[in-house]
Amino acid sequence: MEPKKIVELVKDDQVEGFFSIRHKEIREYVRGRYVSLELGDSSGRIGAVMWEPDQFALDDLEAGMVVKARGVVGEYRDRAQLTVSRIRLAREDEYRLEDIMPHSPQTDEVRKTRLLALRDQIQDANIRKLTDRFFDDQPWLEGFLNAAAGKLWHHATIGGLSEHSANVTELALRVAQGYDFLNRDYLIFGGLFHDAGKMATYHTRTVIDFTDEGRLIDHICLVDDWVCQRARSIDGFPDKLLIALRHLILSHHGEREFGAPVVPQIPEAFILYYCDEIDSKMGAIDRIRSRQNGRGWSEYVNMLNRFLYFGEGPSEDSPQ
Amino acid sequence: MEPKKIVELVKDDQVEGFFSIRHKEIREYVRGRYVSLELGDSSGRIGAVMWEPDQFALDDLEAGMVVKARGVVGEYRDRAQLTVSRIRLAREDEYRLEDIMPHSPQTDEVRKTRLLALRDQIQDANIRKLTDRFFDDQPWLEGFLNAAAGKLWHHATIGGLSEHSANVTELALRVAQGYDFLNRDYLIFGGLFHDAGKMATYHTRTVIDFTDEGRLIDHICLVDDWVCQRARSIDGFPDKLLIALRHLILSHHGEREFGAPVVPQIPEAFILYYCDEIDSKMGAIDRIRSRQNGRGWSEYVNMLNRFLYFGEGPSEDSPQ
Amino acid sequence: MEPKKIVELVKDDQVEGFFSIRHKEIREYVRGRYVSLELGDSSGRIGAVMWEPDQFALDDLEAGMVVKARGVVGEYRDRAQLTVSRIRLAREDEYRLEDIMPHSPQTDEVRKTRLLALRDQIQDANIRKLTDRFFDDQPWLEGFLNAAAGKLWHHATIGGLSEHSANVTELALRVAQGYDFLNRDYLIFGGLFHDAGKMATYHTRTVIDFTDEGRLIDHICLVDDWVCQRARSIDGFPDKLLIALRHLILSHHGEREFGAPVVPQIPEAFILYYCDEIDSKMGAIDRIRSRQNGRGWSEYVNMLNRFLYFGEGPSEDSPQ
Amino acid sequence: MEPKKIVELVKDDQVEGFFSIRHKEIREYVRGRYVSLELGDSSGRIGAVMWEPDQFALDDLEAGMVVKARGVVGEYRDRAQLTVSRIRLAREDEYRLEDIMPHSPQTDEVRKTRLLALRDQIQDANIRKLTDRFFDDQPWLEGFLNAAAGKLWHHATIGGLSEHSANVTELALRVAQGYDFLNRDYLIFGGLFHDAGKMATYHTRTVIDFTDEGRLIDHICLVDDWVCQRARSIDGFPDKLLIALRHLILSHHGEREFGAPVVPQIPEAFILYYCDEIDSKMGAIDRIRSRQNGRGWSEYVNMLNRFLYFGEGPSEDSPQ
Amino acid sequence: MEPKKIVELVKDDQVEGFFSIRHKEIREYVRGRYVSLELGDSSGRIGAVMWEPDQFALDDLEAGMVVKARGVVGEYRDRAQLTVSRIRLAREDEYRLEDIMPHSPQTDEVRKTRLLALRDQIQDANIRKLTDRFFDDQPWLEGFLNAAAGKLWHHATIGGLSEHSANVTELALRVAQGYDFLNRDYLIFGGLFHDAGKMATYHTRTVIDFTDEGRLIDHICLVDDWVCQRARSIDGFPDKLLIALRHLILSHHGEREFGAPVVPQIPEAFILYYCDEIDSKMGAIDRIRSRQNGRGWSEYVNMLNRFLYFGEGPSEDSPQ
Amino acid sequence: MEPKKIVELVKDDQVEGFFSIRHKEIREYVRGRYVSLELGDSSGRIGAVMWEPDQFALDDLEAGMVVKARGVVGEYRDRAQLTVSRIRLAREDEYRLEDIMPHSPQTDEVRKTRLLALRDQIQDANIRKLTDRFFDDQPWLEGFLNAAAGKLWHHATIGGLSEHSANVTELALRVAQGYDFLNRDYLIFGGLFHDAGKMATYHTRTVIDFTDEGRLIDHICLVDDWVCQRARSIDGFPDKLLIALRHLILSHHGEREFGAPVVPQIPEAFILYYCDEIDSKMGAIDRIRSRQNGRGWSEYVNMLNRFLYFGEGPSEDSPQ
Repeated sequence: MEPKKIVELVKDDQVEGFFSIRHKEIREYVRGRYVSLELGDSSGRIGAVMWEPDQFALDDLEAGMVVKARGVVGEYRDRAQLTVSRIRLAREDEYRLEDIMPHSPQTDEVRKTRLLALRDQIQDANIRKLTDRFFDDQPWLEGFLNAAAGKLWHHATIGGLSEHSANVTELALRVAQGYDFLNRDYLIFGGLFHDAGKMATYHTRTVIDFTDEGRLIDHICLVDDWVCQRARSIDGFPDKLLIALRHLILSHHGEREFGAPVVPQIPEAFILYYCDEIDSKMGAIDRIRSRQNGRGWSEYVNMLNRFLYFGEGPSEDSPQ
Repeated sequence: MEPKKIVELVKDDQVEGFFSIRHKEIREYVRGRYVSLELGDSSGRIGAVMWEPDQFALDDLEAGMVVKARGVVGEYRDRAQLTVSRIRLAREDEYRLEDIMPHSPQTDEVRKTRLLALRDQIQDANIRKLTDRFFDDQPWLEGFLNAAAGKLWHHATIGGLSEHSANVTELALRVAQGYDFLNRDYLIFGGLFHDAGKMATYHTRTVIDFTDEGRLIDHICLVDDWVCQRARSIDGFPDKLLIALRHLILSHHGEREFGAPVVPQIPEAFILYYCDEIDSKMGAIDRIRSRQNGRGWSEYVNMLNRFLYFGEGPSEDSPQ
Repeated sequence: MEPKKIVELVKDDQVEGFFSIRHKEIREYVRGRYVSLELGDSSGRIGAVMWEPDQFALDDLEAGMVVKARGVVGEYRDRAQLTVSRIRLAREDEYRLEDIMPHSPQTDEVRKTRLLALRDQIQDANIRKLTDRFFDDQPWLEGFLNAAAGKLWHHATIGGLSEHSANVTELALRVAQGYDFLNRDYLIFGGLFHDAGKMATYHTRTVIDFTDEGRLIDHICLVDDWVCQRARSIDGFPDKLLIALRHLILSHHGEREFGAPVVPQIPEAFILYYCDEIDSKMGAIDRIRSRQNGRGWSEYVNMLNRFLYFGEGPSEDSPQ
Repeated sequence: MEPKKIVELVKDDQVEGFFSIRHKEIREYVRGRYVSLELGDSSGRIGAVMWEPDQFALDDLEAGMVVKARGVVGEYRDRAQLTVSRIRLAREDEYRLEDIMPHSPQTDEVRKTRLLALRDQIQDANIRKLTDRFFDDQPWLEGFLNAAAGKLWHHATIGGLSEHSANVTELALRVAQGYDFLNRDYLIFGGLFHDAGKMATYHTRTVIDFTDEGRLIDHICLVDDWVCQRARSIDGFPDKLLIALRHLILSHHGEREFGAPVVPQIPEAFILYYCDEIDSKMGAIDRIRSRQNGRGWSEYVNMLNRFLYFGEGPSEDSPQ
Repeated sequence: MEPKKIVELVKDDQVEGFFSIRHKEIREYVRGRYVSLELGDSSGRIGAVMWEPDQFALDDLEAGMVVKARGVVGEYRDRAQLTVSRIRLAREDEYRLEDIMPHSPQTDEVRKTRLLALRDQIQDANIRKLTDRFFDDQPWLEGFLNAAAGKLWHHATIGGLSEHSANVTELALRVAQGYDFLNRDYLIFGGLFHDAGKMATYHTRTVIDFTDEGRLIDHICLVDDWVCQRARSIDGFPDKLLIALRHLILSHHGEREFGAPVVPQIPEAFILYYCDEIDSKMGAIDRIRSRQNGRGWSEYVNMLNRFLYFGEGPSEDSPQ
Repeated sequence: MEPKKIVELVKDDQVEGFFSIRHKEIREYVRGRYVSLELGDSSGRIGAVMWEPDQFALDDLEAGMVVKARGVVGEYRDRAQLTVSRIRLAREDEYRLEDIMPHSPQTDEVRKTRLLALRDQIQDANIRKLTDRFFDDQPWLEGFLNAAAGKLWHHATIGGLSEHSANVTELALRVAQGYDFLNRDYLIFGGLFHDAGKMATYHTRTVIDFTDEGRLIDHICLVDDWVCQRARSIDGFPDKLLIALRHLILSHHGEREFGAPVVPQIPEAFILYYCDEIDSKMGAIDRIRSRQNGRGWSEYVNMLNRFLYFGEGPSEDSPQ
């Protein structure tokens, strides 16, 4: 029988499984020192405490490690908490990374198919060539398919970046059905690559965290450089086109105070900004909604400065 | 032969036609007083000057009147300007209002059909009944079909309000294709009625201007009241549903500083806000784009604090 | 002998009394689980802890209940804290709600008399009729007299809403003595009803918390609807007057970023905004001042982003 | 017969009178140069134009002068405009300054009586002494009684500063009737002196304009220095009291972005801030209201970012 | 005799010289059409008017042209204005560009020497190599030496960009004398190249105006791309170093709302931001100061939302 | 052997020494009450806990006292924490204040020498006299040399105020080398005295905390008063000069929202603002940098809303 995932744990469950270490702290109480942890797996995260830590737990354990832990589920501040009795480093052959890290609900294959289908809709030969310079680069594509779109807020999963990129592009094309003056190739290119710099913004092996260049340069200018570099490798790539494509990416945060070096000045850049906003917000809202089983009021959402409400909703007619 | 519309006038054209008076001022120069005007018709507006005004022009002429004017087209600050030689009040049987006021590019019939088709997609019996309380009220529907969505910025035409409302609703349904947890009935109701209060916000007979309640109450609370009033006329209309529908309308400006008495707290309210933003912005951008023949840089757009760029675009090498 | 109120408790007091449960949490420590509580009565709130909770405390106890609790007063982070030894649900006939919930220092009778006296100063027959539509509605009036004006910040007591409403109205009339062009009937109506929607914004039985419509519609649009509904029930109520009265209520938060759907545009609306500001701020400041015994520096006040100072003041040399 | 004031002029009036020069510009048109002026008297201001200026008008005339001018009233952009035929410098014995500059509707005597009556209500001996240090200083008092509270927005008249100061103080005392914990002496001192620095902020001889110290130091720190200086001249003036009085003055703009070096931290400082706000706003609104004869919509008010509405009001059916 | 420069012109001067056309408008007045112009030369700009324009002036003249014009100096709104009697296109061999466009007070040679001296202080071999990749590229260096740092505000002259870049770098080194932990090579590189993208942001032939990429990409991302491109051409250029150098450039606007894609996160980036601020502000202030002859109050400076004051200063009693 | 300073303590150290009490709290846990403390010495601060407090620790100990404490170093939340076994009040003759409070790395003598050297560069006789009125006042000078420039952020040490003042002045003179129109005497006076009011803003005996006047008046207006007072004691001190010097001090926070009663309006005031910004920021950054041993990423810096990065820097390959 498959062991339970973190999200399925309930009080008094006996647990033995593999987890990533997301945070570790040593604290002191009246009887001495204990270890406070945050553990993660592909389904979520859980607080943990080890009251009588051994030398390994005190000295060697650190964030980013994958461990095998045993314990029992209790409760702290109304949330499940694991009281750990034993913990050790896991060997790489004992666990599968996809059990340790949250991953997109869509397989690599599904996401790749969506991306390629969008690529195939590009009409302009130069934009198509430039797109291929990325998609035909296998290591790049693999990196893109494995990247996350964020640390916590939305699509913060392995594969989340490519899922979000496909979502935004498809959404932009649906929006464009109402406005015939929009250049669909611009929307596809912008949708596919606007956030691609996040590949280099985060480490995403066992936990998601910022790289140096993620903080010092950020995803917008990271991908801007890649686009310039590859466009230059294409003979006769038109200057004016490169300017337009760079503009789409550079302006996609919409306002300077959100980190856009330039604001949208062409119609397609406005659409890209709104579609990115919509898919990010819906991704985050859906994540919060799932924790609520799709109904009632959420806890206070700091990123939005408000509570969210999901009505008496779909679960309403379930027997209670 | 049909007389030329304002938008078609070029230098040295002899003009005789019907116009609304949008602004009037009396000014003095070295030889005495002259009258400065802004004239409008269904295609746009033009500055005008009457160097030797008669008593009617000086004393009786005022904004909102429809006049018959004769003159010749000159230029001032690089824009066409009409030098008026004769002007008099028009009789109501001399002109058609649709020639005087800008109107939606879609006919009443087309817009009505779009609205009813959207109405027919509503699944929930109560939302459908409430919608019918509006749409089955002929004077209301006629008012809605004739209203403008603004004074200048977007859909500022007779019929512009219903065109924009249908646009937003259809757009919201297209967006919702990517997010299956969204309640489509909420989106349809919100899309159709979010701006309906603008019917009472503007006078739209010969020029578009604010009513007293338009300024003192504004469109959001105007339609909120109508929704409450009609929902109460339906036996057993659920309280919780009315709260949700009011919330959709009250929150559709998205942020308090944009005039929303409450911020979006249900997923559909976020979508409605974004779709209203997109269609308003695209409406305004398309209007600016048309003045540019779809290419090059616009003049500075105050409402956006930037210039807009339409590329070297499709019209460049097309024969004209 | 009457048992001590929360505000009177000092270290080492033995306590046995009735309290509302404001928050409850189950936490874990080295010896197992304990229950952390916030208890309230009419005088204030106190943190509490039950180190060896029974089944009732662990499983059934929840926010909003009224309980009978026994314990001893200790200290935590320099504040009094109750260590609870026994706790059980209270029967409705054991306690009086006025002992459980904070209430206005003025009796219902006093507040009602103030409101009616203000009502009697109204000159305009229509405004008087509309006011009577509310005040002659006994359940409405009772609800109004029992409502709170907030959760925590100012007048957060049973009766606080009507106390604040009378304060603001009387204050507005005093301010108006200096400005003879102000319409006093507008000030009375606006003062009495500006916050009345708070009746439906909060539950106020044993604790004060938001209702669904409180969050999704908020008090401004709630009362706006009631005003419209009742004005329509009066034959020949003038349209222009209804617009002005709605404007007073809708604009009383003064600025859009404070949640006003429209900003003040008539002189009386400015006065109403300032008087609401003054009485809210003075209500909150007086509450903080009381905790300081009227002197010295307060703790940091988050809502104001500053410390408050009450001088070396009157209480310094008074015998204690 | 007394000559007409500017505010009474109508088209075609023949004018001969004394005016201050508020602005002067030389412009060029097809026939050569002309002089464009803004003239003022105690009732208001009027634009003026001199088509065939003499040497004096071209070379010597400048802002701040008082002139005798002759001309006829015309119209420009819907406002009255004076076409000047003759203009010369006025001799000091030809005119009374009170005819040239706008002045408070209350006489010096009335304002002085109000100020002294307020002073007499002060209970605290030290605050009284400090107040007397100002009021017993005849040149200071005379300067205070002759000063303006601003250039244009509110109480921008000779005597306007003392009128506003008396208003704010009396208002603060009326507000304080509802809050018994407020120190009335603080309110009186703060009300009387909060804006007194404006005496040195503006020149107010023939036009109102900034002094160097008005711009470089501003009225708040100007009066703060005077208070320190005079308090030190009083034996045994308590340090703590001086701190409180300085705080009242320094914080009366309420927020740092409005120029307050510190924000209000004592209850009386909040009241002073609100009362200053109310009287300034009412002063400005009443000025605008008068231009409207007390009804209808104002022109757009830039300082408030809105239009103001004065209803169909009392003046509508009154005979005029 | 050398003809007078614009800045030297006084009323009644007879003028014949070469100018760039900065703006052109056709306007209409009672006698027909006239042409309104803004002319520029190396010393400044002047308004001009041609009352009886010929066909060339009406139809062919446009912004960016260099013309030969004859006329006489008058005055309009207190500023000198040229009344043009004859105007024609200039031949390229008739004028020197340095007479037409404002240029840096320092010669190319001086600026180049300053830049190279700064370059020579670089210690790190890689940073030196990268700097040489720019400075050894003759066309690039020439472009850099000829570019402007802005359209109007500061260093808006031919050569202004390199002058400002040298200023900022030297200033940063002087600042760094007080903080020994700062990396001087970072400061030199950042100072020399932070604004270099402005070479491609403006056209600077006969007038300074934005290029397409200037608006759509802006100078920060333009130079970021050049740095990446050239660093990649250097064998073994360290990744970490490239990240740091890009960070210096990308963050030099200091805050996101000023257009920085990332905020300063290393100490040198803060210094660079402040030094750029100081030299820009001093450049603009000195320009305004010169128009004032170094004393008195300036006109209102929109970019700073204030007036500037230069005291009664050194020039007051000096003979002129 | 000198006992270890707080900053040198490592786990398991036995400690006996003198400390200031920065915070004290009594808390309750399952076994009763314990005391939680923050202790400070000249090198930094450390959390401490006393599990079995005696009567002195429970009842008498309070913030600001200097104590002798014994204990052992443990760890809590990854930081060192002292478990205190004995604590008692220190006698004044047992410790040196310079061991208890953090002090500037420069001696009094060094700072005084720097200040006097700067004073000696003043050319203007009046500015020099005014400066001497401060520096020749021994108690004032001693107070200035002993004051801190803040509670925590930068130069929060005994002597920090004079160190920062000398830094800013020297920096301003280095900056001024590039701009010859700047008045160096203004820069020296402004640099030396801009923050001098902080002498009265903080108590700095055993801990640094706000005085009443520090909060209610703040350092800017405190020193403004001192300057006025002393300038008046100088015969014939020019009014215009006093206005300029006051302006420099009053505007040195640069923007109203940062607490400047007026914004910079003379060139030297801009320079002073920037130099204060630079030295404050560098002071704070260097403090954070030291905690990092000059490399890697800092913890999140709340005051800057960002992380700081110090590179792989100089300390990396040094032997440790």
